[in-house]
Amino acid sequence: MEQLIPFNKPHLTGKETHYIYDAVNTGKISGNGKYTRLCQEFFEREFGFGKCLLTTSCTDALEMAAILLDLKEGDEVIMPSYTFVSTANAFVLRGAKIVFADSRKDHPGIDEDKIEALITDNTKAIVPVHYAGVACDMDKIMNLALKYGLYVVEDAAQAIDSYYTGEDGVKRALGSIGHLAAFSFHETKNIISGEGGLLAINDEKFMDRAEIIWEKGTNRSAFFRGEVDKYGWVDVGSSFLPSEIIAAFLWAQLENLKDIQKRRVNIWNTYYESLRDWAAKNKIERPFIPEFATNNAHMFYLVCNDDEQRDYIIQKLKKNGVQSVFHYLSLHKSPFYKNKHEGNDLASSDRYSENLIRLPLFYDLDEVMLKNILTIIKKDA
Amino acid sequence: MEQLIPFNKPHLTGKETHYIYDAVNTGKISGNGKYTRLCQEFFEREFGFGKCLLTTSCTDALEMAAILLDLKEGDEVIMPSYTFVSTANAFVLRGAKIVFADSRKDHPGIDEDKIEALITDNTKAIVPVHYAGVACDMDKIMNLALKYGLYVVEDAAQAIDSYYTGEDGVKRALGSIGHLAAFSFHETKNIISGEGGLLAINDEKFMDRAEIIWEKGTNRSAFFRGEVDKYGWVDVGSSFLPSEIIAAFLWAQLENLKDIQKRRVNIWNTYYESLRDWAAKNKIERPFIPEFATNNAHMFYLVCNDDEQRDYIIQKLKKNGVQSVFHYLSLHKSPFYKNKHEGNDLASSDRYSENLIRLPLFYDLDEVMLKNILTIIKKDA
Repeated sequence: MEQLIPFNKPHLTGKETHYIYDAVNTGKISGNGKYTRLCQEFFEREFGFGKCLLTTSCTDALEMAAILLDLKEGDEVIMPSYTFVSTANAFVLRGAKIVFADSRKDHPGIDEDKIEALITDNTKAIVPVHYAGVACDMDKIMNLALKYGLYVVEDAAQAIDSYYTGEDGVKRALGSIGHLAAFSFHETKNIISGEGGLLAINDEKFMDRAEIIWEKGTNRSAFFRGEVDKYGWVDVGSSFLPSEIIAAFLWAQLENLKDIQKRRVNIWNTYYESLRDWAAKNKIERPFIPEFATNNAHMFYLVCNDDEQRDYIIQKLKKNGVQSVFHYLSLHKSPFYKNKHEGNDLASSDRYSENLIRLPLFYDLDEVMLKNILTIIKKDA
Repeated sequence: MEQLIPFNKPHLTGKETHYIYDAVNTGKISGNGKYTRLCQEFFEREFGFGKCLLTTSCTDALEMAAILLDLKEGDEVIMPSYTFVSTANAFVLRGAKIVFADSRKDHPGIDEDKIEALITDNTKAIVPVHYAGVACDMDKIMNLALKYGLYVVEDAAQAIDSYYTGEDGVKRALGSIGHLAAFSFHETKNIISGEGGLLAINDEKFMDRAEIIWEKGTNRSAFFRGEVDKYGWVDVGSSFLPSEIIAAFLWAQLENLKDIQKRRVNIWNTYYESLRDWAAKNKIERPFIPEFATNNAHMFYLVCNDDEQRDYIIQKLKKNGVQSVFHYLSLHKSPFYKNKHEGNDLASSDRYSENLIRLPLFYDLDEVMLKNILTIIKKDA
């Protein structure tokens, strides 16, 4: 049967090509122009991030973070095993050893209570991943960082417009809490630019150097601000900045953030409520949102009892023209890292690898499609 | 006085936003889609490159090359000092030591006869930079690589549609000769996509791994070809692939490559011929194109007698509304590397740093503007 409802469909607000056309016509289409600044200022203003720098991907933002932390061969970085390869690769590229932690039993995010036992004299950073845009318990993580002198890099790839409320009662945007944070605008995210990302630099001591690393290791930005009289090679770096074409696209999305979020939350809530009884009956878990977290409706997932049940649902949907997908494979069991992983079994991570299924969730998923998906899921079960 | 003639103005063929609109409407705007394939196949077909992979920048293509060469701390890479920081940074990021060579006396490219003396047991690669799109003497460089078991990575950032004719009489495209080659589509290049690049992989042994590194260290491409039944983390890697939005833009440029090149060569030739007598009288050097090289008209430059003469010309042009610019500062004298450079003075590199000036050269530079620039240059001298 032909695919009728895809897992994802990039949403266009309508002004993307308009702004691209504008960028193209100003004759400035390389990076760090008008639209780059508009986007960066938006993030700083709306979410209380420190300095913001657009990047060509979330992967690149994580790589910038790894460079900023001055990681060396033998340094250790703690992160969940249930995450995207880039969370780990960015640090592997600097020579760091990845120490994988298990996920929470009630959520695919890192189990905050299992981090401390993994800290050694070589540990330099913790990288919590806000899975599905749902906050990790940042108080616990920041307290560990303070106690052991570690840095925290939030992998906020999926976490735009999502919040954490700590013990002090203050509601903070994810990405504004760690020393550094990385976001993704890949076409599968809430806000997109095809490929794209952002590094938020919250710790002031990294701000000047971040700009240099972003500009290929040169003090070009300081030069254009008139702070130095010529610019040159002052540090390592890369070409992390995206074209203005990408920034112009992103700007059209950001202007519609509220509308996009409202629609996604509606879809998410419909899934959540409509599958309550069915999930209970089949002992299938719906997403858990801890009290300290908000829900940005990045993803609607289910955790099945076993891979057989999961595959049954995937196949049932597929037969009826609906695409649903599983997600990560535990990185500690990957061909690349299984012989390097020194820890124990990570049972929860493996459970999500085997049993988690993601349902279609995109702006243009209308009432009819949604009803159709729900009917198929509930059929024969 | 207001700037009347800029040094560079990105040229649009007219179909850029049309193809972007098409990419956006197919709903596939992340990387490795239709336009990425169209561009990659174009390069393989037109220039005889091996496997081609689009990247987010030439910097990223060079970084991919450095990862493919498996460089380690202490490995040495030989390159000219008169080049862009990214040529060096890509290898510094892998821990390699950069060994800077001097430029030719008759051209800013690497002095091929000074390379052999720099080769040690730790040397792993030579990175010739085809300055201004003019070929280095690749026979000499490839012979050294063969003799000492080294790899050659062509920094062909400026060298699209330029050729080298070796001792065998065969005319080969730059970028098709070394084991690997990197191109740039930054807005200042002949063919542009704002920010963008390409890695050409000519040595077969790198092809499979290049694709994996490009896809964030996963065997995702093999999965979609049906060669493996699931994909996972198999290697280091990054998100080197650009958005389809960028590839769509690039495709509109490539369709017009011949037209763009013809126009640029015309402008270049006008500069070259019109400044013959003036240059001779003032003992200023015009660009030298060796017999083995072609001219892709990427850049028209002049080499003055000293920086005073250069600054006089730059100021004279500026006063009359024309922007002209100098170029690289010798990397071996940069704040980042001056204490790491163990070699001798690199007199030719320094001479180009101090005395070279680049004149406006872009598609939309018309006859009137060109005549205006030439008149200003020749005035009072």
